[in-house]
Amino acid sequence: MSSGRLGRPTTMTSVIAAITTSVDGYVTGPDDGPDQGLGEGGERLHYWVFRGPWSAESPPEGPPTGDEGGWLTELMERVGAVVGGRWTYEAAGHWGGTNPFGLPFFIVTHRPEDEPPGAGFTFVNGVEEAIRAARDAAGGKGVYVMGGADVIRQALDAGLVDEFSLIIAPVVLGGGKRLFDGSERSLDLEPIGVRQTRYATFIDYRVPRG
Amino acid sequence: MSSGRLGRPTTMTSVIAAITTSVDGYVTGPDDGPDQGLGEGGERLHYWVFRGPWSAESPPEGPPTGDEGGWLTELMERVGAVVGGRWTYEAAGHWGGTNPFGLPFFIVTHRPEDEPPGAGFTFVNGVEEAIRAARDAAGGKGVYVMGGADVIRQALDAGLVDEFSLIIAPVVLGGGKRLFDGSERSLDLEPIGVRQTRYATFIDYRVPRG
Repeated sequence: MSSGRLGRPTTMTSVIAAITTSVDGYVTGPDDGPDQGLGEGGERLHYWVFRGPWSAESPPEGPPTGDEGGWLTELMERVGAVVGGRWTYEAAGHWGGTNPFGLPFFIVTHRPEDEPPGAGFTFVNGVEEAIRAARDAAGGKGVYVMGGADVIRQALDAGLVDEFSLIIAPVVLGGGKRLFDGSERSLDLEPIGVRQTRYATFIDYRVPRG
Repeated sequence: MSSGRLGRPTTMTSVIAAITTSVDGYVTGPDDGPDQGLGEGGERLHYWVFRGPWSAESPPEGPPTGDEGGWLTELMERVGAVVGGRWTYEAAGHWGGTNPFGLPFFIVTHRPEDEPPGAGFTFVNGVEEAIRAARDAAGGKGVYVMGGADVIRQALDAGLVDEFSLIIAPVVLGGGKRLFDGSERSLDLEPIGVRQTRYATFIDYRVPRG
C-alpha cells in the first residue's frame, strides 16, 4: 500500500458520506425521534430505499431493487465498514437489535458504555475516532458515513470526507431537522455523478482536500 | 384552444419556476442586496450561467453555451414571458436598465408606480396578478418564474406552478437566504428530469395539482 508526502495515495480508503434530504433541505420531518422515526411525513424521504410508501407500522421487506437500488448497491460494494450517529441508531429502533449491514458498524456516541453486547454495533466516542476505527476495519475498502446530519457535518468540517452524496427525495417537508444547520463553513464541491428515479435524485460530489 | 371543467386543458400555458440554490439550500450568500448582488460568495451559485468564475466587478459576457446552456436554452424556447421579484430586480442592478430576456417581463412589487419608463419591465402588485399578466402576454407559450425565493414560494403556495426546477450549484455557502424559509407547507413532487454539468445539477419536477 502506498503512502507518503507526495500526494494522496490512490489506495487510501475513501470515506463516503451520504444522506437523504427533502427538496427543502430537511433530513427528518418535524418531531423526529425514538418513537417517531423520521418525524411527521419523514418516511417519504426513504421511499427510494423501499420502492414506495411504507410506515413505521407496516415496514417494508427487503432492500431496494432495480433503478432505486442501483445507487445503494454500488455504494455497498465499495465499502467495508459503516459509521452512524447515536440519534440515527435510536430513531431506527436499533434496527431491531441487529446490525443491518453485515459489515463492521460504528455508532458515534458520548456513552460508549451503552453498547449492547452481541448485536454487531461498536459504540465509539467521537466522529474522528469512529471513522478511524472504521478505516481500520474496512479491509482496504471504503467507509460509508450514513448520518445523521450532525455526524456528516462534523466529518465534513474535520476534512475527513472524500465523497459526499446528496439524495434528494421529491418532497417538500415544510419543517424538520436541516442537514447543514449549525454550520457556517463554506465549501466547494466537484460534481461526479447524478441519477434519478421515481423516488429520489442522487447527486454525487467529490470533496476537494484543502 | 380547449378549456372547461373536464380536467386540465393540455394547451394551457405552463408556469415553470426555477431557481439556483447551494447544496445547503441557500439562494444567496450572506448579506445579499442592491450593493452586494448575491451576497458573500453567492456569485458561485451562478457560475453555471456564465461558464465559470465571475464577479460583480468583472461580469461575464454572453449567455451560457454547450452543456451549461442546454437547460436554459430549452427553458427559454418554451416560455413567452417572465416573472421576477422586486428584490431580484434590485439585486441584479436592474440588469443595467434594460429587460435582458427580450420577452415580456413582469416584476412583482408593492410599488408598481416605481416602474421605469421604456426599459421593458412591467411592474405588477402581487404574484398572482403578475403570473396572470404573464400568461396573457406569453402568446400561448409558458411562463418562467425566475425568483427570488419569496416569489417562487408564493407561486407554489398559491398552486400556480406546473413545473419546478431546482438548480443546485456545487457549493456549500454556510449562510444566506433560504428558498423555503417561512413556508411550512408540505408538497409531493414528481421528478421528470435531471442533468449535471461542472457548475450545476438541474433537477426538474412536475408539481401535482391538488
